[in-house]
Amino acid sequence: MSEPAATRTLKRKLGSCVDTGAEARHAASFDGSKLAWTPDAVIQPRSEEDVATVLRHANRHRVPVTTRGAGSSLTGSASPVRGGWVLDLSGWRKLRVDRAAGMAYVQSGVRTGELQRAAARRGWFYPPDPSSKEFGTLGGNIACNAGGMRGGKYGVTRDYVLALRGVLPTGEIVSWSRDLRKYAAGYNMRDLWIGSEGTLGVITEAVLRLIPLPASRWTVLASFANETLALRTVKAILSARLIPSILEFLDRESVACAESATGESVFPGQAGRPVLLMELDGHPAAVRDERRRLLEIVQPRALAVREASDEKETEALWEVRRKCSGAMFELGDSKLNEDVVVPLRSQVKLMTFIRRLSRETGVPIATFGHAADGNFHVNIMYRRDDRDISTRALRALRALMRKVIELGGAISGEHGIGLAKTPFLTLEHGRAEIAAMRAVKQALDPNNILNPGKIFDVTEVWKKRPLKVRLPWDHK
Amino acid sequence: MSEPAATRTLKRKLGSCVDTGAEARHAASFDGSKLAWTPDAVIQPRSEEDVATVLRHANRHRVPVTTRGAGSSLTGSASPVRGGWVLDLSGWRKLRVDRAAGMAYVQSGVRTGELQRAAARRGWFYPPDPSSKEFGTLGGNIACNAGGMRGGKYGVTRDYVLALRGVLPTGEIVSWSRDLRKYAAGYNMRDLWIGSEGTLGVITEAVLRLIPLPASRWTVLASFANETLALRTVKAILSARLIPSILEFLDRESVACAESATGESVFPGQAGRPVLLMELDGHPAAVRDERRRLLEIVQPRALAVREASDEKETEALWEVRRKCSGAMFELGDSKLNEDVVVPLRSQVKLMTFIRRLSRETGVPIATFGHAADGNFHVNIMYRRDDRDISTRALRALRALMRKVIELGGAISGEHGIGLAKTPFLTLEHGRAEIAAMRAVKQALDPNNILNPGKIFDVTEVWKKRPLKVRLPWDHK
Repeated sequence: MSEPAATRTLKRKLGSCVDTGAEARHAASFDGSKLAWTPDAVIQPRSEEDVATVLRHANRHRVPVTTRGAGSSLTGSASPVRGGWVLDLSGWRKLRVDRAAGMAYVQSGVRTGELQRAAARRGWFYPPDPSSKEFGTLGGNIACNAGGMRGGKYGVTRDYVLALRGVLPTGEIVSWSRDLRKYAAGYNMRDLWIGSEGTLGVITEAVLRLIPLPASRWTVLASFANETLALRTVKAILSARLIPSILEFLDRESVACAESATGESVFPGQAGRPVLLMELDGHPAAVRDERRRLLEIVQPRALAVREASDEKETEALWEVRRKCSGAMFELGDSKLNEDVVVPLRSQVKLMTFIRRLSRETGVPIATFGHAADGNFHVNIMYRRDDRDISTRALRALRALMRKVIELGGAISGEHGIGLAKTPFLTLEHGRAEIAAMRAVKQALDPNNILNPGKIFDVTEVWKKRPLKVRLPWDHK
Repeated sequence: MSEPAATRTLKRKLGSCVDTGAEARHAASFDGSKLAWTPDAVIQPRSEEDVATVLRHANRHRVPVTTRGAGSSLTGSASPVRGGWVLDLSGWRKLRVDRAAGMAYVQSGVRTGELQRAAARRGWFYPPDPSSKEFGTLGGNIACNAGGMRGGKYGVTRDYVLALRGVLPTGEIVSWSRDLRKYAAGYNMRDLWIGSEGTLGVITEAVLRLIPLPASRWTVLASFANETLALRTVKAILSARLIPSILEFLDRESVACAESATGESVFPGQAGRPVLLMELDGHPAAVRDERRRLLEIVQPRALAVREASDEKETEALWEVRRKCSGAMFELGDSKLNEDVVVPLRSQVKLMTFIRRLSRETGVPIATFGHAADGNFHVNIMYRRDDRDISTRALRALRALMRKVIELGGAISGEHGIGLAKTPFLTLEHGRAEIAAMRAVKQALDPNNILNPGKIFDVTEVWKKRPLKVRLPWDHK
């Protein structure tokens, strides 16, 4: 294939930071979804002015531009589905923590875990905690409004973004808000960009809010006879206005997967039971009081309770949670990985539905997630080459999404729409709502160069075969 | 003046909820800014369908629609500057607190104080605390992203809005997000509406997030030799990662006004000294520890410290803060009331500048505000009929705004732009930024019917004479 004229022009302009080699183009052709479309070039800009140049040229020549951090998105939001150019900001890793003001100044390529450690060394805390944190970039976290386990108490990425700096499709550099804790001057474009998956502008820098690092933590694991009892316990805890910093739920399938992967049962004698994994944090006296109140609620409802008495035991408890996601590939070679949200009142109904759905379709479904904010990861497992089970898995997925909306929920809590959830967007949003969103897109990116094909255009991702590649963050 | 045809049509359609009487039109002609423009009609819709009808007709006939809650805005954001219709939602006061989920379901007309009390009765806390809270509505708070004294620790209105429901200029009813604690599905139109001052849609309902009510509070007042020492103490406190729930700063002019109004000095023997008024809240043991750490920082730097030992003393300390704003009218009959924000590193520089500005222009300036988030209320006082001092006051205002931007700040932290700050928007936002905001407005309200004339069009409010009316929330 000969090189498109626009790419040749860009190479002349920017030189070696524009890579049209096969290797670079392959590496940038897919993200964590492993769905690949080969771009014409990969650009590693050296400066904001380079980013501006790329966008100006792209806008003039109508070249799609997909911005990329680590590419750890699970929805295809960083896959260049319309080809064109990939703008790779993973090397933009400047990071500064302002110890007095409790703020971090980051470039888009800084890894979330890196920021957390830099903040912690100075006594500050950056709570958002997506499981991709050692790989994923803050730029990607902001573009997808990443969440994690601490959402119920601490919120998500959005809640920590004070200001963004970035580039419009015209190549103009803009700042949305400043390094200020309060702000009310003009439209809030900052929050419009957050979660817009790179479709409205390219984020180059951010100022993030930090909070004081909690002085103490306490971790406990509880096992339950069934999912209903576990989720009723969640409701009892939250209704008592106890907000654990982590309140993870794992259903029996998730636990069974983890046990099969580790070769050990979570509770001897209680194999394959659903669990809640909980953490309290804060002032030591507050944690002590809350521990007492929490155990008063949990103990009568649980089959067994295991408190972590030290760092090592805490680590052992977390191991359970970490193993479950990768271990699921024992149930199938392919996963329809959803991250739905339901209100507290609907959690039991959702799990009852999922268990029945799995029985009725004969498809294994393992569910775990962040019960304090109702964000559940529903993993529908199947074997891609088995046509029958693939069809049933897809039927289960569609039924799940309809049910989630019926229960007053949302189709995504933290992964975003990307490509993977595009078939379901209209379940959640009405015609007028989507028309308003598209009008905003049209207003801010009239030539539709920024990450085209995402969020609004329907792609049935299950029809496309994923690459057989192993990514750094793949489990097992 | 004969009634416009569009208004006649609307009256036929909606009947008695459309009021074209002189009294109603006068009452809706101004807000807390007291700048009046008489509308053609005031509509008190009975249902969301009525709101939709109003907007559909307005859109067809190009009639400006200004949505109004209590009208307590200080910037003119609820004044119908282009005439047309005022949509009065102050009667929409349905309120329900979900005790288990920790959420409140409110209609736009619910008063902020009402919600705070309803939440507190159930052990929950709604932290945003604008001083208008007994009058102002949550719809108005959301439209202007209201703040208050607790922003440094707890954030502002935006941080508590989970979902909005409302109506587009087309009359279509939309929901932005749901009663969920996590959400990542499509563009975040919710946060775009928040703070957009009624220019993008009409908010009819909201779901608000609540947090557990802190179990204990402690209040202290400290007096300082000068403003620099007081603000250096602020920096020392925040740098120690102590985040008071309230950290109010009052300069010597503000204190002098309060003392003159109450006839008592705040600290006997320390009259007219700047003060910090601080509150800690949380678990009793945490408050005890933080009290000790706070006093270790404050005592060596302060001239005098007064702790509140009971409710009555706490109330007496707050009285100082409450009196200062109204008492300022001893310094002039007119006020240019700004609510600028500066970063922590610039607080001392701002106050030094303001004191010099007051000396050089001969205009009294009293400054107080929320030091934990850098949001200062700068009150430039003058006598309207004294042409010379009016000119100097205006010169001081312009110099202040330029300085705030130079210090890395923002022209408004919580009041919004409305009419009053329109002359300064371009100081803060560049051409590309404002063009992007206007493109969003054009996309979502192509006929410019929603609160036209606000935010982007320059109005020099000081050229218009305010009404001589006394509003329920006026001091003294």
